[in-house]
Amino acid sequence: MKNLMSELEERAAEFERILGPFLPEASGSAALVIEALRYSLEAGGKRLRPVILIETGRMYGARDQVLYPFAAALEMIHTYSLVHDDLPAMDNDEYRRGRKTTHIVYGEGMAVLAGDALLNLAFETALKAFDAIESYTAEDALSYAKDCRKVIKALNILSKNAGIEGMIGGQCADLCAENAPGSADAESLLYIHEHKTGSMIESAFTIGAVLGGAPEEDIKALSKAAMDVGTAFQIRDDILDVEGEAEKLGKTPGSDLRDGKVTFVTLHGMDASVREVGRLTDEALKAVRGLNVRSAFLEQLCVWLTSRDH
Amino acid sequence: MKNLMSELEERAAEFERILGPFLPEASGSAALVIEALRYSLEAGGKRLRPVILIETGRMYGARDQVLYPFAAALEMIHTYSLVHDDLPAMDNDEYRRGRKTTHIVYGEGMAVLAGDALLNLAFETALKAFDAIESYTAEDALSYAKDCRKVIKALNILSKNAGIEGMIGGQCADLCAENAPGSADAESLLYIHEHKTGSMIESAFTIGAVLGGAPEEDIKALSKAAMDVGTAFQIRDDILDVEGEAEKLGKTPGSDLRDGKVTFVTLHGMDASVREVGRLTDEALKAVRGLNVRSAFLEQLCVWLTSRDH
Repeated sequence: MKNLMSELEERAAEFERILGPFLPEASGSAALVIEALRYSLEAGGKRLRPVILIETGRMYGARDQVLYPFAAALEMIHTYSLVHDDLPAMDNDEYRRGRKTTHIVYGEGMAVLAGDALLNLAFETALKAFDAIESYTAEDALSYAKDCRKVIKALNILSKNAGIEGMIGGQCADLCAENAPGSADAESLLYIHEHKTGSMIESAFTIGAVLGGAPEEDIKALSKAAMDVGTAFQIRDDILDVEGEAEKLGKTPGSDLRDGKVTFVTLHGMDASVREVGRLTDEALKAVRGLNVRSAFLEQLCVWLTSRDH
Repeated sequence: MKNLMSELEERAAEFERILGPFLPEASGSAALVIEALRYSLEAGGKRLRPVILIETGRMYGARDQVLYPFAAALEMIHTYSLVHDDLPAMDNDEYRRGRKTTHIVYGEGMAVLAGDALLNLAFETALKAFDAIESYTAEDALSYAKDCRKVIKALNILSKNAGIEGMIGGQCADLCAENAPGSADAESLLYIHEHKTGSMIESAFTIGAVLGGAPEEDIKALSKAAMDVGTAFQIRDDILDVEGEAEKLGKTPGSDLRDGKVTFVTLHGMDASVREVGRLTDEALKAVRGLNVRSAFLEQLCVWLTSRDH
């Protein structure tokens, strides 16, 4: 296997080519909202969620025409959550990844609408997975039913993890904690991590496997690995906020502490945080190494996600 | 058939009972966003969209367990669009139907989140229509495939009509017109009416029929009737803004003119507007009377929607 960083870059580039055809062209009376959603979606980044979804799908032999709509949909949901999170009424961020945020460029009203459009487009897009199995004839009714159920299960995971029981639940708890500084305890912090970040990572780890018809035990193991990686990823974030280099982070280290933000590090201290990241990474690795299908890429990714320096 | 108004009230009350079980309880860490979305969803109103969806579904024999999730989902999408429309960055409304709007009660950030949660919940809910057909056995594979395709088609209509090609497209054009007062011409006004309002009414008229397996010609006729009724409904709104009684309208007549808003009435005059409403109502009636299944309720509703005085 090649160097993980160049492998990740190649796969992100592959995903850009996959995403393109799912995006509407900015023309007609809705041109501005399309331009705004493309602006936010084309900001790039590592595309980790769709890259993981495609990898786990291929591990279990899912077809590209079924995987691609879900990979695109997952990135659209992730992006809409960033657009709305950046709004003045939420985190009030003017920059993201060195570019002006959507509401700074297109205005607040259009940013609300662009986020809505992205979430809606995500479901329109995921539903296209049914197109790939639409051509079955009457004799194939049993195969159709089988493949249909996989897509339905994947749609249920996608929508549930993005909703109140998943990401939105985490955002709600986060917003409540921000409005009452210092109120978060270890339990509510874990809830926020597991829901705001963990749920979408769980979608990335499990949807592909479901579409490929992976055995139930593997889907459970992938779900567990995702939650461990997601939480470790967040704690690593908190550690980097204290120890990181400003240049690599793209923000000034120490900002959490100055903002009075409760993090794993402020609650448990640096040593315990580093130990917890190590423990969670080991747990995740154990889970993915126990799968019926192995993936060196996925294993390396679990280690990198929890040990990155930016 | 009973008086239309009391019939509408009974059906709205029936829908409240249908909607209830689809709503999460406001408890746990996400309690506040659930409370906010329930607040907006429980504001009531005539529930016209789900009532029409259920009526057209029953006309063609669709099962309640398949219809109900879509009826609830359609009302959730309609409600999320109102919550986001009322935001300061959009229409900046403090009251709706005599109650304080969601962002006034729960704050702007939570209102953004509640709208997002409603849109997401709409898709989670509509997907439950698959549960009703999940129990088919292997021998029923053909029936399963047939019913599955109906639900998939309904999901495609629901998501497309709520998105860029439907409601969001209309909202984008509306927002652009508001930011450039006086810029709207007859063509862009028709686009806004057909997309912002018409698309969701089209979902109400066609989704039930699709779920009931209505013939293609009936679905086309229902779609045409929906567009005619939707546009006539909007023009009637513009007429009422000039002629209506403040008390019944719940707002001061003449506000469009004072706000410099371009409407069908300001563009074409009162006489032409009244004639156009009459023509569109006749067209809609012709379409629903030509259906393979007749519904006195639907016919009366088309007339009432375009001739109401508030």
